[in-house]
Amino acid sequence: MVGYSNGKKPNSCPEAKTAVNKKVRTFSSANRGMSFEEDINISNEYYLSKGLMMVYKRPTPINVVKVDYSRKCARITDAYFEKQSTTDYNGVYKGKYLDFEAKSTKCKSSFPFANISIHQINHLEKVISNGGIAFFLIQFEALKKVYLLDAKWIIDFYKDAKRKSIPYETIKKEGIEIKQGYNPRLYFLDAIEQKYFK
Amino acid sequence: MVGYSNGKKPNSCPEAKTAVNKKVRTFSSANRGMSFEEDINISNEYYLSKGLMMVYKRPTPINVVKVDYSRKCARITDAYFEKQSTTDYNGVYKGKYLDFEAKSTKCKSSFPFANISIHQINHLEKVISNGGIAFFLIQFEALKKVYLLDAKWIIDFYKDAKRKSIPYETIKKEGIEIKQGYNPRLYFLDAIEQKYFK
Repeated sequence: MVGYSNGKKPNSCPEAKTAVNKKVRTFSSANRGMSFEEDINISNEYYLSKGLMMVYKRPTPINVVKVDYSRKCARITDAYFEKQSTTDYNGVYKGKYLDFEAKSTKCKSSFPFANISIHQINHLEKVISNGGIAFFLIQFEALKKVYLLDAKWIIDFYKDAKRKSIPYETIKKEGIEIKQGYNPRLYFLDAIEQKYFK
Repeated sequence: MVGYSNGKKPNSCPEAKTAVNKKVRTFSSANRGMSFEEDINISNEYYLSKGLMMVYKRPTPINVVKVDYSRKCARITDAYFEKQSTTDYNGVYKGKYLDFEAKSTKCKSSFPFANISIHQINHLEKVISNGGIAFFLIQFEALKKVYLLDAKWIIDFYKDAKRKSIPYETIKKEGIEIKQGYNPRLYFLDAIEQKYFK
Protein backbone atom coordinates (compact mmCIF):
# COMPACT_ATOMS: atom_id res chain seq x y z
CA MET A 1 0.00 0.00 0.00
CA VAL A 2 1.25 3.41 -0.78
CA GLY A 3 1.96 5.28 2.42
CA TYR A 4 3.40 4.51 5.78
CA SER A 5 3.26 0.85 6.63
CA ASN A 6 5.85 -0.12 9.19
CA GLY A 7 6.23 0.08 12.89
CA LYS A 8 8.52 3.10 12.85
CA LYS A 9 6.92 6.51 13.19
CA PRO A 10 6.44 8.14 9.84
CA ASN A 11 7.08 11.63 11.19
CA SER A 12 10.84 11.74 10.97
CA CYS A 13 10.56 14.47 8.35
CA PRO A 14 10.74 17.91 9.99
CA GLU A 15 8.65 19.61 7.26
CA ALA A 16 5.74 17.24 7.86
CA LYS A 17 5.90 17.79 11.62
CA THR A 18 5.68 21.54 11.47
CA ALA A 19 3.41 21.97 8.49
CA VAL A 20 0.20 20.32 9.64
CA ASN A 21 -1.53 19.15 12.79
CA LYS A 22 -2.20 15.46 13.40
CA LYS A 23 -5.76 15.33 12.10
CA VAL A 24 -5.03 17.21 8.91
CA ARG A 25 -1.87 15.22 8.29
CA THR A 26 -3.70 11.92 8.55
CA PHE A 27 -6.31 13.08 6.07
CA SER A 28 -3.90 14.64 3.62
CA SER A 29 -1.49 11.73 3.71
CA ALA A 30 -4.35 9.34 2.91
CA ASN A 31 -5.33 11.48 -0.06
CA ARG A 32 -1.75 11.83 -1.17
CA GLY A 33 -1.16 8.09 -1.02
CA MET A 34 -4.35 7.34 -2.89
CA SER A 35 -3.58 9.79 -5.65
CA PHE A 36 -0.08 8.36 -6.25
CA GLU A 37 -1.55 4.85 -6.09
CA GLU A 38 -4.26 5.88 -8.56
CA ASP A 39 -1.65 7.30 -10.92
CA ILE A 40 0.20 3.99 -10.85
CA ASN A 41 -2.98 1.94 -11.31
CA ILE A 42 -4.14 4.05 -14.25
CA SER A 43 -0.68 3.81 -15.80
CA ASN A 44 -0.80 0.02 -15.36
CA GLU A 45 -4.16 -0.06 -17.17
CA TYR A 46 -2.66 1.97 -20.00
CA TYR A 47 0.35 -0.32 -20.36
CA LEU A 48 -1.88 -3.42 -20.19
CA SER A 49 -4.29 -2.07 -22.82
CA LYS A 50 -1.39 -1.33 -25.15
CA GLY A 51 0.01 -4.83 -24.64
CA LEU A 52 3.30 -3.39 -23.38
CA MET A 53 3.45 -4.66 -19.82
CA MET A 54 1.23 -6.42 -17.29
CA VAL A 55 1.32 -5.19 -13.70
CA TYR A 56 -1.34 -5.81 -11.05
CA LYS A 57 -1.83 -4.31 -7.63
CA ARG A 58 -2.03 -6.97 -4.94
CA PRO A 59 -5.25 -6.64 -2.95
CA THR A 60 -4.94 -5.56 0.70
CA PRO A 61 -5.08 -8.84 2.64
CA ILE A 62 -8.18 -9.27 4.79
CA ASN A 63 -8.41 -11.52 7.83
CA VAL A 64 -11.90 -13.04 7.73
CA VAL A 65 -13.23 -13.85 11.23
CA LYS A 66 -16.91 -14.64 10.70
CA VAL A 67 -18.95 -15.67 7.67
CA ASP A 68 -22.72 -15.95 7.54
CA TYR A 69 -23.56 -18.91 5.30
CA SER A 70 -27.33 -18.73 5.93
CA ARG A 71 -27.92 -16.60 2.83
CA LYS A 72 -27.61 -17.66 -0.79
CA CYS A 73 -24.39 -15.67 -1.07
CA ALA A 74 -21.94 -16.12 1.81
CA ARG A 75 -21.64 -12.82 3.70
CA ILE A 76 -18.59 -11.80 5.72
CA THR A 77 -19.78 -10.18 8.95
CA ASP A 78 -16.51 -9.74 10.81
CA ALA A 79 -13.11 -9.15 9.26
CA TYR A 80 -10.03 -6.96 9.55
CA PHE A 81 -7.55 -5.41 7.16
CA GLU A 82 -4.08 -6.89 7.50
CA LYS A 83 -0.72 -5.41 6.63
CA GLN A 84 0.66 -6.40 3.25
CA SER A 85 3.47 -8.88 3.88
CA THR A 86 4.84 -8.47 0.38
CA THR A 87 4.90 -5.45 -1.92
CA ASP A 88 1.99 -3.77 -3.63
CA TYR A 89 2.71 -4.56 -7.25
CA ASN A 90 4.01 -7.37 -9.40
CA GLY A 91 3.86 -8.29 -13.04
CA VAL A 92 5.64 -9.18 -16.24
CA TYR A 93 7.54 -7.22 -18.88
CA LYS A 94 9.24 -8.97 -21.81
CA GLY A 95 8.93 -12.25 -19.90
CA LYS A 96 10.81 -10.93 -16.86
CA TYR A 97 9.24 -10.86 -13.41
CA LEU A 98 8.74 -7.36 -11.95
CA ASP A 99 8.04 -6.54 -8.31
CA PHE A 100 7.88 -3.11 -6.76
CA GLU A 101 6.67 -0.98 -3.91
CA ALA A 102 5.34 2.58 -4.28
CA LYS A 103 6.09 5.11 -1.56
CA SER A 104 5.16 8.73 -1.18
CA THR A 105 6.73 11.28 1.13
CA LYS A 106 5.92 14.84 2.08
CA CYS A 107 9.58 15.53 2.85
CA LYS A 108 11.49 17.72 0.44
CA SER A 109 15.01 16.95 1.59
CA SER A 110 15.03 13.18 2.08
CA PHE A 111 13.15 9.89 1.91
CA PRO A 112 12.68 8.49 5.45
CA PHE A 113 13.18 4.73 5.87
CA ALA A 114 10.27 4.78 8.30
CA ASN A 115 8.21 4.40 5.11
CA ILE A 116 9.58 0.92 4.40
CA SER A 117 8.67 -2.20 6.38
CA ILE A 118 11.04 -5.07 7.07
CA HIS A 119 8.55 -7.45 5.39
CA GLN A 120 8.91 -5.51 2.18
CA ILE A 121 12.71 -5.65 2.42
CA ASN A 122 12.62 -9.42 3.01
CA HIS A 123 10.23 -9.93 0.13
CA LEU A 124 12.28 -7.84 -2.30
CA GLU A 125 15.46 -9.68 -1.33
CA LYS A 126 13.76 -12.95 -2.31
CA VAL A 127 12.65 -11.44 -5.61
CA ILE A 128 16.25 -10.42 -6.34
CA SER A 129 17.71 -13.80 -5.35
CA ASN A 130 15.21 -15.47 -7.72
CA GLY A 131 16.39 -13.28 -10.57
CA GLY A 132 13.41 -10.90 -10.65
CA ILE A 133 13.50 -7.15 -11.21
CA ALA A 134 12.83 -5.31 -7.95
CA PHE A 135 12.51 -1.59 -7.42
CA PHE A 136 10.79 1.26 -5.60
CA LEU A 137 8.79 4.10 -7.08
CA ILE A 138 9.31 7.04 -4.73
CA GLN A 139 7.20 10.16 -4.94
CA PHE A 140 8.35 13.45 -3.44
CA GLU A 141 4.93 14.97 -3.26
CA ALA A 142 5.90 18.57 -2.52
CA LEU A 143 8.49 18.54 -5.30
CA LYS A 144 6.10 16.81 -7.75
CA LYS A 145 8.87 14.33 -8.61
CA VAL A 146 8.80 10.53 -8.91
CA TYR A 147 11.90 8.34 -9.12
CA LEU A 148 12.60 4.69 -9.82
CA LEU A 149 15.24 3.31 -7.43
CA ASP A 150 16.65 -0.19 -7.73
CA ALA A 151 15.61 -2.26 -4.68
CA LYS A 152 19.11 -3.72 -4.18
CA TRP A 153 20.51 -0.19 -3.92
CA ILE A 154 17.78 0.91 -1.47
CA ILE A 155 18.25 -2.23 0.66
CA ASP A 156 22.01 -1.66 0.92
CA PHE A 157 21.34 1.90 2.04
CA TYR A 158 18.61 0.71 4.47
CA LYS A 159 20.93 -1.85 6.05
CA ASP A 160 23.53 0.80 6.76
CA ALA A 161 22.50 1.30 10.39
CA LYS A 162 23.80 4.89 10.47
CA ARG A 163 21.14 5.97 8.01
CA LYS A 164 17.52 6.83 8.79
CA SER A 165 16.76 8.36 5.42
CA ILE A 166 18.15 8.88 1.92
CA PRO A 167 18.96 12.50 1.01
CA TYR A 168 16.93 13.80 -1.92
CA GLU A 169 20.11 14.78 -3.75
CA THR A 170 21.33 11.15 -3.56
CA ILE A 171 18.01 9.85 -4.91
CA LYS A 172 18.15 12.41 -7.71
CA LYS A 173 21.62 11.14 -8.64
CA GLU A 174 21.04 7.38 -8.20
CA GLY A 175 17.42 7.12 -9.30
CA ILE A 176 15.77 7.54 -12.68
CA GLU A 177 13.24 10.34 -12.79
CA ILE A 178 9.84 9.20 -14.07
CA LYS A 179 8.38 11.39 -16.77
CA GLN A 180 4.82 12.46 -15.90
CA GLY A 181 2.02 13.14 -18.34
CA TYR A 182 -1.64 12.58 -19.09
CA ASN A 183 -1.72 8.98 -20.33
CA PRO A 184 0.13 7.19 -18.94
CA ARG A 185 0.37 9.49 -15.95
CA LEU A 186 3.68 7.92 -15.01
CA TYR A 187 5.99 6.73 -17.80
CA PHE A 188 7.66 4.23 -15.54
CA LEU A 189 8.02 1.62 -18.29
CA ASP A 190 10.60 3.94 -19.89
CA ALA A 191 12.54 3.94 -16.63
CA ILE A 192 12.34 0.12 -16.32
CA GLU A 193 13.58 -0.22 -19.90
CA GLN A 194 16.44 2.21 -19.27
CA LYS A 195 17.48 0.63 -15.96
CA TYR A 196 17.09 -3.10 -16.67
CA PHE A 197 16.94 -3.69 -20.41
CA LYS A 198 19.73 -1.53 -21.86
CA MET B 1 -9.15 -20.95 -6.74
CA VAL B 2 -8.91 -24.63 -7.19
CA GLY B 3 -12.27 -26.07 -8.23
CA TYR B 4 -15.16 -25.02 -10.40
CA SER B 5 -15.26 -21.32 -11.04
CA ASN B 6 -17.07 -20.45 -14.24
CA GLY B 7 -20.63 -20.10 -15.40
CA LYS B 8 -20.75 -23.51 -17.07
CA LYS B 9 -22.10 -26.40 -15.03
CA PRO B 10 -19.30 -28.43 -13.54
CA ASN B 11 -21.22 -31.68 -13.96
CA SER B 12 -20.30 -32.53 -17.52
CA CYS B 13 -18.39 -35.55 -16.24
CA PRO B 14 -20.62 -38.65 -16.22
CA GLU B 15 -18.77 -40.30 -13.33
CA ALA B 16 -19.35 -37.31 -11.06
CA LYS B 17 -23.05 -37.24 -11.93
CA THR B 18 -23.74 -40.80 -11.05
CA ALA B 19 -21.37 -41.28 -8.16
CA VAL B 20 -22.67 -38.81 -5.59
CA ASN B 21 -25.70 -36.71 -4.77
CA LYS B 22 -25.58 -32.93 -4.86
CA LYS B 23 -24.89 -32.34 -1.17
CA VAL B 24 -22.13 -34.87 -0.91
CA ARG B 25 -20.54 -33.71 -4.15
CA THR B 26 -20.38 -30.11 -2.96
CA PHE B 27 -18.74 -31.14 0.27
CA SER B 28 -16.29 -33.57 -1.26
CA SER B 29 -15.30 -31.21 -4.08
CA ALA B 30 -14.51 -28.49 -1.54
CA ASN B 31 -12.30 -30.88 0.40
CA ARG B 32 -10.68 -32.16 -2.75
CA GLY B 33 -9.93 -28.65 -3.99
CA MET B 34 -8.49 -27.61 -0.64
CA SER B 35 -6.22 -30.59 -0.44
CA PHE B 36 -4.77 -30.03 -3.92
CA GLU B 37 -4.45 -26.32 -3.12
CA GLU B 38 -2.71 -27.19 0.14
CA ASP B 39 -0.29 -29.49 -1.66
CA ILE B 40 0.60 -26.65 -4.03
CA ASN B 41 0.94 -24.10 -1.20
CA ILE B 42 3.18 -26.40 0.83
CA SER B 43 5.28 -27.13 -2.25
CA ASN B 44 5.59 -23.36 -2.84
CA GLU B 45 6.82 -22.91 0.73
CA TYR B 46 9.39 -25.65 0.17
CA TYR B 47 10.69 -24.10 -3.05
CA LEU B 48 10.78 -20.63 -1.44
CA SER B 49 12.67 -21.89 1.63
CA LYS B 50 15.24 -23.58 -0.61
CA GLY B 51 15.68 -20.39 -2.63
CA LEU B 52 14.69 -22.23 -5.81
CA MET B 53 11.52 -20.44 -6.87
CA MET B 54 9.08 -17.87 -5.49
CA VAL B 55 5.38 -18.48 -6.08
CA TYR B 56 2.51 -16.91 -4.13
CA LYS B 57 -1.17 -17.69 -4.07
CA ARG B 58 -3.26 -14.63 -4.85
CA PRO B 59 -5.77 -13.98 -2.07
CA THR B 60 -9.46 -14.48 -2.88
CA PRO B 61 -10.71 -10.96 -3.67
CA ILE B 62 -13.18 -9.54 -1.16
CA ASN B 63 -15.70 -6.81 -1.91
CA VAL B 64 -15.85 -4.67 1.24
CA VAL B 65 -19.27 -3.03 1.69
CA LYS B 66 -19.22 -1.61 5.25
CA VAL B 67 -16.39 -0.73 7.62
CA ASP B 68 -16.81 0.30 11.24
CA TYR B 69 -14.18 2.95 12.00
CA SER B 70 -15.43 3.64 15.54
CA ARG B 71 -12.97 1.18 17.09
CA LYS B 72 -9.22 1.54 17.30
CA CYS B 73 -8.83 -1.08 14.59
CA ALA B 74 -11.13 -0.66 11.58
CA ARG B 75 -13.58 -3.59 11.49
CA ILE B 76 -15.23 -4.85 8.30
CA THR B 77 -18.88 -5.62 9.10
CA ASP B 78 -20.22 -6.40 5.64
CA ALA B 79 -18.30 -7.91 2.75
CA TYR B 80 -18.54 -10.60 0.08
CA PHE B 81 -16.15 -13.00 -1.58
CA GLU B 82 -15.63 -12.22 -5.25
CA LYS B 83 -14.56 -14.47 -8.10
CA GLN B 84 -10.86 -14.35 -8.94
CA SER B 85 -10.54 -12.41 -12.20
CA THR B 86 -7.02 -13.67 -12.77
CA THR B 87 -5.40 -16.98 -11.89
CA ASP B 88 -4.54 -18.30 -8.45
CA TYR B 89 -0.76 -18.30 -8.59
CA ASN B 90 2.08 -16.21 -9.89
CA GLY B 91 5.75 -15.87 -9.18
CA VAL B 92 9.31 -15.91 -10.44
CA TYR B 93 11.77 -18.63 -11.43
CA LYS B 94 15.23 -17.78 -12.80
CA GLY B 95 14.00 -14.23 -13.41
CA LYS B 96 11.09 -15.36 -15.59
CA TYR B 97 7.48 -14.55 -14.75
CA LEU B 98 5.30 -17.58 -13.96
CA ASP B 99 1.51 -17.62 -13.85
CA PHE B 100 -0.70 -20.64 -13.44
CA GLU B 101 -4.07 -21.99 -12.46
CA ALA B 102 -4.64 -25.20 -10.51
CA LYS B 103 -7.65 -27.37 -11.35
CA SER B 104 -8.90 -30.60 -9.92
CA THR B 105 -11.39 -32.99 -11.47
CA LYS B 106 -13.18 -36.10 -10.28
CA CYS B 107 -13.44 -37.37 -13.84
CA LYS B 108 -11.25 -40.25 -14.86
CA SER B 109 -11.64 -40.04 -18.62
CA SER B 110 -11.35 -36.33 -19.35
CA PHE B 111 -10.83 -32.80 -18.04
CA PRO B 112 -14.07 -30.77 -18.51
CA PHE B 113 -13.63 -27.17 -19.72
CA ALA B 114 -16.45 -26.23 -17.36
CA ASN B 115 -13.64 -25.99 -14.80
CA ILE B 116 -12.03 -23.02 -16.57
CA SER B 117 -13.48 -19.50 -16.59
CA ILE B 118 -13.19 -17.08 -19.49
CA HIS B 119 -11.48 -14.57 -17.15
CA GLN B 120 -8.71 -17.04 -16.56
CA ILE B 121 -8.29 -17.64 -20.30
CA ASN B 122 -8.14 -13.88 -20.96
CA HIS B 123 -5.62 -13.37 -18.17
CA LEU B 124 -3.36 -16.21 -19.32
CA GLU B 125 -3.44 -14.92 -22.91
CA LYS B 126 -2.10 -11.57 -21.61
CA VAL B 127 0.61 -13.38 -19.64
CA ILE B 128 1.68 -15.19 -22.82
CA SER B 129 1.63 -12.05 -24.98
CA ASN B 130 3.87 -10.34 -22.38
CA GLY B 131 6.36 -13.17 -22.60
CA GLY B 132 5.48 -14.88 -19.32
CA ILE B 133 5.31 -18.61 -18.67
CA ALA B 134 1.68 -19.71 -18.35
CA PHE B 135 0.38 -23.16 -17.52
CA PHE B 136 -2.23 -25.25 -15.74
CA LEU B 137 -1.69 -27.84 -13.05
CA ILE B 138 -4.46 -30.41 -13.52
CA GLN B 139 -5.22 -33.00 -10.91
CA PHE B 140 -7.14 -36.16 -11.76
CA GLU B 141 -8.18 -36.93 -8.25
CA ALA B 142 -9.46 -40.46 -8.72
CA LEU B 143 -6.34 -41.42 -10.68
CA LYS B 144 -3.99 -39.67 -8.20
CA LYS B 145 -2.23 -38.00 -11.12
CA VAL B 146 -1.20 -34.36 -11.63
CA TYR B 147 -0.06 -32.90 -14.96
CA LEU B 148 1.45 -29.63 -16.10
CA LEU B 149 -0.15 -28.42 -19.32
CA ASP B 150 1.04 -25.39 -21.23
CA ALA B 151 -1.65 -22.66 -21.15
CA LYS B 152 -1.30 -21.88 -24.90
CA TRP B 153 -2.01 -25.51 -25.69
CA ILE B 154 -5.04 -25.62 -23.35
CA ILE B 155 -6.40 -22.33 -24.74
CA ASP B 156 -6.16 -23.57 -28.34
CA PHE B 157 -8.06 -26.70 -27.32
CA TYR B 158 -10.60 -24.60 -25.34
CA LYS B 159 -11.26 -22.33 -28.32
CA ASP B 160 -12.06 -25.29 -30.53
CA ALA B 161 -15.83 -24.97 -30.17
CA LYS B 162 -16.43 -28.67 -30.84
CA ARG B 163 -14.69 -29.60 -27.60
CA LYS B 164 -16.16 -29.58 -24.12
CA SER B 165 -13.34 -31.46 -22.48
CA ILE B 166 -9.86 -32.81 -23.04
CA PRO B 167 -9.56 -36.62 -23.06
CA TYR B 168 -7.31 -37.96 -20.31
CA GLU B 169 -5.23 -39.84 -22.87
CA THR B 170 -4.48 -36.55 -24.68
CA ILE B 171 -3.46 -34.87 -21.41
CA LYS B 172 -1.23 -37.83 -20.59
CA LYS B 173 0.46 -37.44 -23.97
CA GLU B 174 0.71 -33.63 -24.13
CA GLY B 175 1.25 -32.84 -20.45
CA ILE B 176 4.15 -33.48 -18.13
CA GLU B 177 3.30 -35.71 -15.19
CA ILE B 178 4.21 -34.13 -11.85
CA LYS B 179 6.16 -36.41 -9.56
CA GLN B 180 4.54 -36.59 -6.10
CA GLY B 181 6.29 -37.09 -2.79
CA TYR B 182 6.54 -35.94 0.79
CA ASN B 183 8.45 -32.65 0.51
CA PRO B 184 7.77 -31.06 -1.85
CA ARG B 185 4.46 -32.83 -2.28
CA LEU B 186 4.40 -31.83 -5.93
CA TYR B 187 7.70 -31.61 -7.81
CA PHE B 188 6.29 -29.14 -10.27
CA LEU B 189 9.52 -27.16 -10.54
CA ASP B 190 11.02 -30.18 -12.33
CA ALA B 191 8.16 -30.03 -14.84
CA ILE B 192 8.60 -26.24 -15.33
CA GLU B 193 12.32 -26.77 -15.90
CA GLN B 194 11.69 -29.56 -18.40
CA LYS B 195 8.98 -27.70 -20.31
CA TYR B 196 10.34 -24.16 -20.40
CA PHE B 197 14.05 -24.16 -19.63
CA LYS B 198 15.48 -27.03 -21.69
